[in-house]
Amino acid sequence: MKPEILDCTLRDGGLVNRFFFSDEFVRDLYLTNLEVGVDYMEFGYKASEKQFNWKDFGKLKFCREEDIRQVVGDHSSKMKISVMADVGRTERGSILARKDSVIDMIRIATYSSTIPEAIELIEECHEKGYETSVNIMAVSSDTESMIHKFLGEFCDSSVDVIYLVDSFGAFYPEQIRKLSNLYFEYAEKQGKLLGIHAHNNQQLAFANTLEAIHCGAGFADATCDGMGRGAGNCSMEMLVGYLKDKQLQELPILKFIEKHLIPMKEAGIRWGYELPYLLTGQGRVHPSRAIQFIQEGCKGLAGMFAQIAAGE
Amino acid sequence: MKPEILDCTLRDGGLVNRFFFSDEFVRDLYLTNLEVGVDYMEFGYKASEKQFNWKDFGKLKFCREEDIRQVVGDHSSKMKISVMADVGRTERGSILARKDSVIDMIRIATYSSTIPEAIELIEECHEKGYETSVNIMAVSSDTESMIHKFLGEFCDSSVDVIYLVDSFGAFYPEQIRKLSNLYFEYAEKQGKLLGIHAHNNQQLAFANTLEAIHCGAGFADATCDGMGRGAGNCSMEMLVGYLKDKQLQELPILKFIEKHLIPMKEAGIRWGYELPYLLTGQGRVHPSRAIQFIQEGCKGLAGMFAQIAAGE
Repeated sequence: MKPEILDCTLRDGGLVNRFFFSDEFVRDLYLTNLEVGVDYMEFGYKASEKQFNWKDFGKLKFCREEDIRQVVGDHSSKMKISVMADVGRTERGSILARKDSVIDMIRIATYSSTIPEAIELIEECHEKGYETSVNIMAVSSDTESMIHKFLGEFCDSSVDVIYLVDSFGAFYPEQIRKLSNLYFEYAEKQGKLLGIHAHNNQQLAFANTLEAIHCGAGFADATCDGMGRGAGNCSMEMLVGYLKDKQLQELPILKFIEKHLIPMKEAGIRWGYELPYLLTGQGRVHPSRAIQFIQEGCKGLAGMFAQIAAGE
Repeated sequence: MKPEILDCTLRDGGLVNRFFFSDEFVRDLYLTNLEVGVDYMEFGYKASEKQFNWKDFGKLKFCREEDIRQVVGDHSSKMKISVMADVGRTERGSILARKDSVIDMIRIATYSSTIPEAIELIEECHEKGYETSVNIMAVSSDTESMIHKFLGEFCDSSVDVIYLVDSFGAFYPEQIRKLSNLYFEYAEKQGKLLGIHAHNNQQLAFANTLEAIHCGAGFADATCDGMGRGAGNCSMEMLVGYLKDKQLQELPILKFIEKHLIPMKEAGIRWGYELPYLLTGQGRVHPSRAIQFIQEGCKGLAGMFAQIAAGE
C-alpha cells in the first residue's frame, strides 16, 4: 500500500534557513509537488507572533492565511495543505475554522512531557474541522512505559494520525520496526493511522521510512534532497523512486533540486549527512551540538565522540 | 552474532585514487584496524603486472608480497589479511603458497558470466592454502535462475564465503533480505558463510549491511568514511557504532578519518553519496556514468534521469 506522502521541505527545511525562502522557491515547490503527486504539502509552522519576532524569520514560520493563499491561489487540486503547531509555541484561539482556511491538516508537535497540552490543541483543531496528527518528538529518550502511556492517551483523543518521530536520527531499522508495530497496534484499534518522520544522522532516514511503511505506516514524511535540520530527512527523490510504480513522478523533484537546492547549497546553506551527525545520532543527543560543531569548522571529531560517550 | 568485519578501505577506496595512498596512510590504517578490532584487512588487488602498467597505479593495485610486508612487518596479530583477485585480471600461477605469504584470504571477484574461470581461481587459491571468498558482482542485472545456478556451482566448489555484492547500489533492504536468505540457504548446507558488500548509491549501504547481518551474514565489508568507488561503501564507523557492544572501538576510526580522509577530501578526492549516484542506483546501471557526470560539473541532472529511464 502506498502511504500518503507528505512533503515537509518548507517546514523542516525552514529550520536550516530560518524560513527565508523566496516566493519563487515556495511557488515552484508547490507546482513541483502537484506534478510529483505528493498528497500533503506542509508550508511551515503556525508559531506565535507574540513569542517570535516577525523580522527574525521568514513568513512561513507563522503561516498566516494570506501568505499561503498568495502561493496557492484558489488551490483547486486534491493535494492537501498542512502546517505544524508546536505545543507551547502556538497561540491558542488564533486558528481559523477550517471552512475559512486553505489549510487541511494541523500537525501538533509535542514532547512526551506535554501530552495534556498537546491533546487540548488536537481537540481544538479537530473541533474547528481540521485533520490532525500528533508528532511525538525525541522518543529515543523515552522509556517503553512512557511510550505505552502516551500512545494510550492519544488513542483516546480525536487525533487522526500518530507519528513515530526519530528526532535524533538514533534508531536502527529493527527499532523502527518494533516501535512501528507498537504504534500501529495502538492506532489501528482506534481507526487511526501511523506516520513516520525520520532523520538522517546515521544515513538511515530512507531505510527507516521504508521499514515503517512495511509495518503499515499510512503517512510518510520526506523533503526534496532531504532538506531539514542537521542531517536532514528522508529524501523525496529516494522515496518516490522506490514507489515509482505508484503514479508518482520523480523528474519534477530533480528539476526543482537543480533550480533551487543546488544553488542554495552553493551559496553556503548546509544540510545533510556529515560525520558529527552520526555521533549525535549514535549518542541519542540533540543534533544542535553537531550543528554548532560544523559551524565552528569541524575540529576535534575524536574529542566530540569522547564527550558524547562520557555523557557530557 | 557479530560477523567478521572486513575493512576494504584500501581496495575499494583505491578505485577512487588509483591506489595512490601514502605509506603513512596505509601504515596508520593498519594500526587503526588493529585498535578497532577489525577481523580482516584488505590491502588491494592482485592485478596482473602484464596487463596493467605499474606506473599508472599505486602499488596496492598489485599487492606484491614485499609491499604488504613493508607495512605489517612480522604481523604478529590475529587480524587477517586479504587481497582481491579479479577474474581475468590476475596472473594465474603468480600466487605464492600461503605458508610463504602474509596473506590469509584471497577474494575472487567475478561476474556471473565467468563462473568457470572463477572456480578455477578459487581451487588454485584453496590448494595453495588460502581462505577464499567469491564476490559475484552486479547481480542486480542477473535473473533469479542465473543466481540459483551460480549459487549451486559455488556451493560445489572449495570456496569458504559467498558474497552478496550490490555493485550498483540498486537493492532495497527487502531485496537484500530475500537474496541474503537465498544465498544463506545455499551456503549453510555446504558449511559456507554468507558475506555482504554494499554500495551507497541510495544511502542504503549501512541499512543493507544490517539487513544481511540479520539474515545470518558471517562477513561484512566496510570502509572508513565509506571510502569507495562512486557513492562508496558501508561506513566502518556506522557499523562499529552499531556493534559497539561487541568489543569493537569506534574512536580510532574517527582519529584516522580526521588525520587522513578529511584532508584527502579537502584536496579534492571525492566519494560518497551524491544525487547522480541515486539515479544510477535506481536505474540499476554502472556508477561510471555518474562519476563522469560529477567530474563534468553535474550539469543536467534531469536530463541524466530521463536518459537512464529511457534505457540509454
